[in-house]
Amino acid sequence: MENRKNLMKKIKTALISLSDKSNLLPLLKVLKKNKVKLISSGGTYQAIRKLKFECLEIAKFTNFNEILDGRVKTLHPKIHAGILYKRNKKSHINDLKKNKFESIDLVIVNFYPFEKTIEQIKNHSKIIENIDIGGPSMARSAAKNYNDVTIVSSPENYNDLINELKLNKGSTSLDFRKKMSQLTFAETAYYDSVISKYLNDVLNIKFPNKKIIHAKLIEKLRYGENPHQEGAIYSMSQKSQINQIYGKKLSYNNYNDIFTAIEISQSFERKKGTVIIKHANPCGVSLDPNGLRSFKSALNCDPLSAFGGVVLCNFKINRKLAIEMNKIFLEVIIAKGFNDDALKIFKTKKNLRLIDISKVFPNEMFKFKSFDNKILIQSNKTEIFNSKDFEVVSKIKPNKFQLNNLLFALNICRYVKSNAIVLSKNMTTIGIGSGQPSRLDSCNIAIEKMTRFNKTNGDIFAASDAFFPFVDGIEKLIQSGVTAVIQPSGSIRDKEIIKFANSTNTILVFSKKRYFSH
Amino acid sequence: MENRKNLMKKIKTALISLSDKSNLLPLLKVLKKNKVKLISSGGTYQAIRKLKFECLEIAKFTNFNEILDGRVKTLHPKIHAGILYKRNKKSHINDLKKNKFESIDLVIVNFYPFEKTIEQIKNHSKIIENIDIGGPSMARSAAKNYNDVTIVSSPENYNDLINELKLNKGSTSLDFRKKMSQLTFAETAYYDSVISKYLNDVLNIKFPNKKIIHAKLIEKLRYGENPHQEGAIYSMSQKSQINQIYGKKLSYNNYNDIFTAIEISQSFERKKGTVIIKHANPCGVSLDPNGLRSFKSALNCDPLSAFGGVVLCNFKINRKLAIEMNKIFLEVIIAKGFNDDALKIFKTKKNLRLIDISKVFPNEMFKFKSFDNKILIQSNKTEIFNSKDFEVVSKIKPNKFQLNNLLFALNICRYVKSNAIVLSKNMTTIGIGSGQPSRLDSCNIAIEKMTRFNKTNGDIFAASDAFFPFVDGIEKLIQSGVTAVIQPSGSIRDKEIIKFANSTNTILVFSKKRYFSH
Repeated sequence: MENRKNLMKKIKTALISLSDKSNLLPLLKVLKKNKVKLISSGGTYQAIRKLKFECLEIAKFTNFNEILDGRVKTLHPKIHAGILYKRNKKSHINDLKKNKFESIDLVIVNFYPFEKTIEQIKNHSKIIENIDIGGPSMARSAAKNYNDVTIVSSPENYNDLINELKLNKGSTSLDFRKKMSQLTFAETAYYDSVISKYLNDVLNIKFPNKKIIHAKLIEKLRYGENPHQEGAIYSMSQKSQINQIYGKKLSYNNYNDIFTAIEISQSFERKKGTVIIKHANPCGVSLDPNGLRSFKSALNCDPLSAFGGVVLCNFKINRKLAIEMNKIFLEVIIAKGFNDDALKIFKTKKNLRLIDISKVFPNEMFKFKSFDNKILIQSNKTEIFNSKDFEVVSKIKPNKFQLNNLLFALNICRYVKSNAIVLSKNMTTIGIGSGQPSRLDSCNIAIEKMTRFNKTNGDIFAASDAFFPFVDGIEKLIQSGVTAVIQPSGSIRDKEIIKFANSTNTILVFSKKRYFSH
Repeated sequence: MENRKNLMKKIKTALISLSDKSNLLPLLKVLKKNKVKLISSGGTYQAIRKLKFECLEIAKFTNFNEILDGRVKTLHPKIHAGILYKRNKKSHINDLKKNKFESIDLVIVNFYPFEKTIEQIKNHSKIIENIDIGGPSMARSAAKNYNDVTIVSSPENYNDLINELKLNKGSTSLDFRKKMSQLTFAETAYYDSVISKYLNDVLNIKFPNKKIIHAKLIEKLRYGENPHQEGAIYSMSQKSQINQIYGKKLSYNNYNDIFTAIEISQSFERKKGTVIIKHANPCGVSLDPNGLRSFKSALNCDPLSAFGGVVLCNFKINRKLAIEMNKIFLEVIIAKGFNDDALKIFKTKKNLRLIDISKVFPNEMFKFKSFDNKILIQSNKTEIFNSKDFEVVSKIKPNKFQLNNLLFALNICRYVKSNAIVLSKNMTTIGIGSGQPSRLDSCNIAIEKMTRFNKTNGDIFAASDAFFPFVDGIEKLIQSGVTAVIQPSGSIRDKEIIKFANSTNTILVFSKKRYFSH
């Protein structure tokens, strides 16, 4: 009991310095009830006085008038010593007495809204003006000395403080102060990370020596990839959020598939189409000005795998399409909006989740993933194809329709896990071979899918994410009906492969660029 | 010309406050040459005086004696106003004059070594004592006012400053000051991120509302997954680094494969074995007390795919094994050390890279990956199997050898991209089906590999990363020679599957846990 008492700290003096002055009233009431002396300045002082509470101005507390338009007011030894001194250390108490300094037991602070500022304005000088100096300094002082001092650095914690003071009759517990300290260092680290990222962007620094990534929790997930793993999803910026409009909570794997689907759809530019994802790989993609047809064609690529899959339409879903989609079991449907009719139909399914991506657009230039204590970072592969990169190396030249179909196959191929082979027809995948250690195996899988579910007549296009090391893969494709192939080139057997293409009247295009994906 | 001149700022007064006092001499020489007045205190003051340079004590500059064992010395308006005032603003200049404050044009500071401290000591109070308050405050003030003030916050930039002052005869350019400001906010953000992570760990907070990740650049890579993508690798802590002892620079894909191999090998515990990786998937794994045999067996799983692969041996490689490995083309060989004889043999190959992982051990509990502006985070799946989780559901019960082999297959299975099927024999994979949208397809691929490269007699074990939705997959496996199966269970057809196993005298074990991997 004695011990617990020692861990309790009575709040006698509070320093309040706020950028966001909302929700102050209930807090001030509790502070007044506990006879806490308030110190403040500027706008916060005025807000407190307006609510009819007594308050001492910082300038009177420190005997130092704020200068430089408020740039310097709390950066004063009387403030920082009052916060930082150790209450159980004699020499510290003496230092305070000698200087006629007073104890500050509670600091309530929040910072200039730097993150909001960079979202709202483009003027660099004004943005820099919004870097808070005094606030983070005070917050860090108080958070460091959590043993004696209570710090509240976000309006989100006002209620916690109110409850704590009520529970402990004007005191705070060590556990509470420690927790608030932890939140505060998250706050200051986050704040400077936003500034750091902004300055890196301004100076176009892609790979700084010290990289700091900041993100806000969207939600803790029921579990990770598997039920025995914990998982959560975070957001690095408030721009561009997916909007779930119906259904159960999204799972880790749902999110994984949704983001893969969005990434693929963003490569379509303005073309209308459908993507079906299963286990983070596309198992059916089709572009078609007719939305319903694009779904049916995408589904037809591998209707068995589509079962329980994630479907994205980069257009608004109408009643007719909804009826068609409802015929099979899907976990998630993503669209640029849903007609009311369509919504009604979908909502008959309890296990379906609906996502609106009308307001989703790409933000970040880089992707990263961690392995233990390492992070691999790379730029996105969403660049638009440049026709100059492509070289037709076969005797037979593709017409525009054929070239477009080859580029469609290659575009999808870059989102399929390597080694990847995509077979397509009329801007629709008809066979996808994914995730194999050998290219020939991926060819065989793609061919097997094509022959099992699709007709093999007419022009059939094939794309490979990397070069064919031997003739065998391309040979297998052509034997199975492929009439045109696009691949990066770069093999020592390129000549042999061109020769083979010509001997079989196959169109062969070199994309020059490789598209591994893991 | 006029404009450029205005952007130049003459350094007249410098404030120096250092935790790391190394490499000061050349810097002090240049400052002296340019008649810069130095202000400092404590250990830095003594270090400067010891090098025979003149220096004014901060206490004399501010007329305020440092208190609280140095906790409060630079947190003074005279310091911060001297840094923060805008040199082109009349009211600011007047504020300075009125208070008899002086200009501070250059701040050289580095912080208490918090990161080193938490690596070296465990005492929480001492760790907290190492949170620097004054340093970051000054650094942030100077970095905010980079328009007028030069900030150097790391000894790494002393030479840059020396060169800048030499080039501009005691002045600094706006570009330089901006660059230093950017580096400083990276420094303060990194610093508080380390503190934040430390406090999260102390309080066991896994998914904080605001998450900040800090990392140091190991190296910029030649490119990312593909030559047209930029890439880099970062490290979140200095503990546990892979050590490249021979060969060309590692590529993004090398790192990706190396980390996958290490992760798998860490699941072996103390058992000796070899892992072969291709395109981030294992294509051969074998445990064997005889290292040479473990390599040969792993290779035999899919010798074609192993071509150009990444091989990991969790033991020291000797001459005999090196001779065997040198027979095929490998990109990377990873081991817990190499005998000198082995090294000599490997060094005949120009394109081979050798990695020593003797000092690598797992650190982080969580993995993350980004998609545009989102981050998915989850705990690792490296938990050790618990025999209580497993339930033998077939009439025929596995003996210890059989159960061990089933667990081996399941263990590898959780590192194969889903849907994953692993076939094994004598603690060696003999067929791996990876990355398919349908489980049956993965079964077929695994079987195809087994029959192409391996004998199909004797006990053959199969593991599936998730339940079989239908009997067809397991039926196919058993028809192909599989004698025992382990799978999570959870299908509505579990009973049917048990019945089928019993009707074919197959051992069937439910692992209860699912092991998706994407």
